Amino acid sequence: MATKKYKVIFQPSGSRGLVDEGKTVRDAAQALGVDIESVCGGKRTCGKCKVKIQEGFFEKFDIDSKMDHLTPLEPEEKKKIKPQELEDNYRLACTAKVKGDILVFVPEESRGGGQVVRKAATDIKIENNPAIRKYYVELPPPTLHDPEGDLERLFKELQKAHFLSDLTMDYVVLKDLPTVLRKDKFKVTVTVWENEFGKKEVIKVESGLSTRRVGLAVDIGTTTVVGYLTDLSTGKVISVDSMMNPQVQYGEDVMARISYAMSNPDGQEKMHKAIIEGLNKIIRVATEEANLTPDDVLGMVVVGNTCMHHLFLNINPIPVGKAPFPPACHHSVYVKARDLKLVTSPAAWVYVLPNEAGFVGADNMGVVIALEQYKHPEIVLAIDIGTNGEIDFGNNRKMFSTSCATGPAFEGAHIKYGMRAAPGAIEHLKVDPVTYEVDFKVIGKAEWHGHAVDADVVARGICGSGIIEAVAELFKAGIVKRNGNFNMDLKEKTSRLRIGDDGLPEFVMVWEKDTSIGKDITVTQHDVRAMQLAKGALYTGSKILMKNFGVKELDKVLLAGAFGSYIDREASMVIGMFPDCDLEKVKAVGNAAGDGARIALVNKEKRKEADVVARQIQYVELTVDPEFQKEFMMSMHFPHMKDSFPHVQHILDKIPKV
Amino acid sequence: MATKKYKVIFQPSGSRGLVDEGKTVRDAAQALGVDIESVCGGKRTCGKCKVKIQEGFFEKFDIDSKMDHLTPLEPEEKKKIKPQELEDNYRLACTAKVKGDILVFVPEESRGGGQVVRKAATDIKIENNPAIRKYYVELPPPTLHDPEGDLERLFKELQKAHFLSDLTMDYVVLKDLPTVLRKDKFKVTVTVWENEFGKKEVIKVESGLSTRRVGLAVDIGTTTVVGYLTDLSTGKVISVDSMMNPQVQYGEDVMARISYAMSNPDGQEKMHKAIIEGLNKIIRVATEEANLTPDDVLGMVVVGNTCMHHLFLNINPIPVGKAPFPPACHHSVYVKARDLKLVTSPAAWVYVLPNEAGFVGADNMGVVIALEQYKHPEIVLAIDIGTNGEIDFGNNRKMFSTSCATGPAFEGAHIKYGMRAAPGAIEHLKVDPVTYEVDFKVIGKAEWHGHAVDADVVARGICGSGIIEAVAELFKAGIVKRNGNFNMDLKEKTSRLRIGDDGLPEFVMVWEKDTSIGKDITVTQHDVRAMQLAKGALYTGSKILMKNFGVKELDKVLLAGAFGSYIDREASMVIGMFPDCDLEKVKAVGNAAGDGARIALVNKEKRKEADVVARQIQYVELTVDPEFQKEFMMSMHFPHMKDSFPHVQHILDKIPKV
Repeated sequence: MATKKYKVIFQPSGSRGLVDEGKTVRDAAQALGVDIESVCGGKRTCGKCKVKIQEGFFEKFDIDSKMDHLTPLEPEEKKKIKPQELEDNYRLACTAKVKGDILVFVPEESRGGGQVVRKAATDIKIENNPAIRKYYVELPPPTLHDPEGDLERLFKELQKAHFLSDLTMDYVVLKDLPTVLRKDKFKVTVTVWENEFGKKEVIKVESGLSTRRVGLAVDIGTTTVVGYLTDLSTGKVISVDSMMNPQVQYGEDVMARISYAMSNPDGQEKMHKAIIEGLNKIIRVATEEANLTPDDVLGMVVVGNTCMHHLFLNINPIPVGKAPFPPACHHSVYVKARDLKLVTSPAAWVYVLPNEAGFVGADNMGVVIALEQYKHPEIVLAIDIGTNGEIDFGNNRKMFSTSCATGPAFEGAHIKYGMRAAPGAIEHLKVDPVTYEVDFKVIGKAEWHGHAVDADVVARGICGSGIIEAVAELFKAGIVKRNGNFNMDLKEKTSRLRIGDDGLPEFVMVWEKDTSIGKDITVTQHDVRAMQLAKGALYTGSKILMKNFGVKELDKVLLAGAFGSYIDREASMVIGMFPDCDLEKVKAVGNAAGDGARIALVNKEKRKEADVVARQIQYVELTVDPEFQKEFMMSMHFPHMKDSFPHVQHILDKIPKV
Repeated sequence: MATKKYKVIFQPSGSRGLVDEGKTVRDAAQALGVDIESVCGGKRTCGKCKVKIQEGFFEKFDIDSKMDHLTPLEPEEKKKIKPQELEDNYRLACTAKVKGDILVFVPEESRGGGQVVRKAATDIKIENNPAIRKYYVELPPPTLHDPEGDLERLFKELQKAHFLSDLTMDYVVLKDLPTVLRKDKFKVTVTVWENEFGKKEVIKVESGLSTRRVGLAVDIGTTTVVGYLTDLSTGKVISVDSMMNPQVQYGEDVMARISYAMSNPDGQEKMHKAIIEGLNKIIRVATEEANLTPDDVLGMVVVGNTCMHHLFLNINPIPVGKAPFPPACHHSVYVKARDLKLVTSPAAWVYVLPNEAGFVGADNMGVVIALEQYKHPEIVLAIDIGTNGEIDFGNNRKMFSTSCATGPAFEGAHIKYGMRAAPGAIEHLKVDPVTYEVDFKVIGKAEWHGHAVDADVVARGICGSGIIEAVAELFKAGIVKRNGNFNMDLKEKTSRLRIGDDGLPEFVMVWEKDTSIGKDITVTQHDVRAMQLAKGALYTGSKILMKNFGVKELDKVLLAGAFGSYIDREASMVIGMFPDCDLEKVKAVGNAAGDGARIALVNKEKRKEADVVARQIQYVELTVDPEFQKEFMMSMHFPHMKDSFPHVQHILDKIPKV
């Protein structure tokens, strides 16, 4: 009798597959390339491999019967798992054995390796015009002949000493004013917030002299959340903290989270609370690292795509998921941190950048104000590649934007051996067009495999930038044809090209012996198709925006996003990720969305600019363009069915003719 | 051996006295004239006489030994008192017996008779210029060719249909906007709040058509809290609810509460929470009575003296209790109801009127904008008599204000047989200047005692307006001399004049047989002294304000406050509560502070006026006036040591010469 197999999905990586009955969750993870921490090597002693068994995702997977899908809890597990965690269905991956379909969430602390946070703060030049300033004053104490109230006494002195007028005071500051004034003989430091329209509010009064001004810029990505604790005086980043977006447990991508909100009455609230808790953790960690406290955070700026924007603000995201995808608001939002239960200074404001359109959100406005295409005559194509792809196109005359459903292929997801940018991930590779031999470089090691004196340069999988190079190299070597099919005529010449388990062609990039997963790492026909769809979507979006603008050529390409910083420009143009451009004019700009948040944090005029520009950018809904289907079909070819690419023509010319 | 006696104090009435050991709390209450509900007549079956034994007030009264001051809990009590109440030291007054000093709080539901709420809404003419308006709109639903966001779609339609521009939206409204818009095909009613400076904010969006606009005006008195649920379209009061200020358990008057805040680290917070809970109860009761819900309350206006203002806003009140008495702020305060945890519509604003000075608070500004002295050339003296006395004096040229420490005598407290304005309280009386016989009228009965066909017109005590008449009548009959001493020469002529238990003179107003308390109701030498101090304070304040203004005569006297409405004008002028004035020009204006709150609720221009006028009124600190001591001494005489009173001279002339 054949062994029964069950479906196992791991979150947040999204890896999935069939696993033999009786295998431990840890075995399943290894088989599917999911790295789970295991200090004791499965001896049930370290308790590091805790995972959470999720409920409510599978049809057959209801709450009453959930424990039937795993072997019962064992005594060792009770010792290692806290009672609260037990209630939340935590298990030890090394102990629980598969008896049915399961969905496994690997919490951050149990993840092996750890992701290389590529969303680090870049050095950008920011003009300083902060919304938040501090003023020190010494007040004359009240007397019977001058019994003026505390607020008026303070405002009078601020006017006299600092020429500040038209001030208001947040209630939560007023509440403590009499006490704070009297702590150190009426000597206080007053923090004044001023918005881009000149509205002024006292958001903090501290006893004595205090000069440090700190704010937090936050980029809420679908997958990664990064907080930049920033000195508001200098614009410098003091500390950075990042984490997986805790909403990942409710769905990998935007559409999955919107579905979760649709099918669970408390789904929106749950995801909102998850991101708020996550941000509070970031605030605590980032401030502690800088020897500060959350109370020192005087203001926040947040960017994120429209769905992240809505869930952060606890706004119903469902309309954003259905045509015509209207967001709750385009305009930027000011909200008191306390209304969101964020642990900053109690009167701090949170500023959320405007949304351009349903699928072009505040994160893209961050990109726009960071790149400032709207200020220069050069015609620039800016692509922000995250879990979704957003494109801005134009110059100081006009701007267009759109969103492309690239899928998560560029991030290494839904690619057979795709993985995040973590140690062991192939980030660069070369395929010899004559011998078809492969050399590769993995994250975490300085040398290429072929030149390594160190024998342990082994691969675990392929990350996003690696998969682009892999496809480009296969194309350049003639192994993959222009239409994306493998050229099976070459099967005679190399054993790397073969038919995989699914009956479709695949190419072995790394032989089993050079991996840490005990299996050949391959690029499959499915993987190539996923890349064709993803790059075709970007190319089509770019082309349609160019048509809307009325040009056939572009001056510059800017690649933004965590992934955009590591991409190989030549490889990406060879496969046709975007229209032809001088390679010298293709630039990686890093996490421009996060840069935009930092800019808006320390320059309030930029906030005004963001709202104005957001209304000027014309959003183009690709699917309603009559040429969309045709263009998309042609764009799926490498590099394109018809368009020419003079800047990489010399490379294309060398491709062996089939 | 003599029976031991213990000190017993009842709150909120403040009645106190020595009680024999072994008496029940109910016996003690009867002896001290405190009315406790008792349906079963002390048979331990109705459970209506629940009282709370307070802790932490007496030096000898610490928590560990508290139960030693009463006999132990009996089984019947456990049946009638809820577990939570038992924890809070509730006992049955008919069962618990005195074994030591105790402080007894009689909760509202256990109070007999019930106070006549005199703070009922008066009919005042209010110009309508509300801060809150509603607008109905039907939006075109979004399409792929018009995918505009919800907020911008709504604002565009509000501009088009109602010419509304420069709108903002409270975050808590935006949060639910996508859901509300889609409930009934994008047909919604939008509530727009506009402050006195033109700032506009959407504070509510409801699905479909909704026209009712309701707000709440609140007068937080030291003793009584009243809420007027008001129709914002008409300015009409829909329902009124009132209660004892729940802070009474922490101190009878302003100074006692400030002391409580000083001696208890959580005192301020406790008193703040108490008033918020009280107001939430008022909101629930008042809205339920009008078939509405708390969520229908779209805005609030609050008045109260500076201490009530601070405790309502959870501001440290301690500086207000110490010279030079600076308030936290003079300016009016806008605060979101949710920041105070008030159960209104979530985005509703609470507007708190400005404070003039440390002891002339927002309640007095309510009086000022209701009476509008600052608009007319007539020189008006306005006296607001509550637990404190506030005076405004002036006309459209200049205004002065002050606060007088009258003590609570005018409210019947600290008067031997003083009581609140409840059934059985003497409110009017006459003393025959020849026979010295007394006739009286009590609250709750239409006829005077002397003319009653109904035999049960019996007295329980004397309320505030009654005590003024009592003193005036004793003075007019020559029984009390100008200096406040009893004329003991008359002892021969009437047995009513006698020496009391304290060795000082007293006058029997009602013989035991005509009372419900089984004791003679007397006016004592102490009572007369308390009245002299109280009326002397008001007179002195008035005189010093007149001096500041630079006049010796006044055109009009307005008596405000719950008590002010029932006062006998002639009696009050005969004893010299205020300087001479044409009696026809002395008017009771009812609860003008509450009227001011209602006016500010439905007329936002009045809010601006309040802030402007509050800064123009000159606060006069009486105690720093060089003539204060001398004037106060002279003012304690009836009606005054030197001043003349032409308008009541004919009455004064009839007083038998001593």
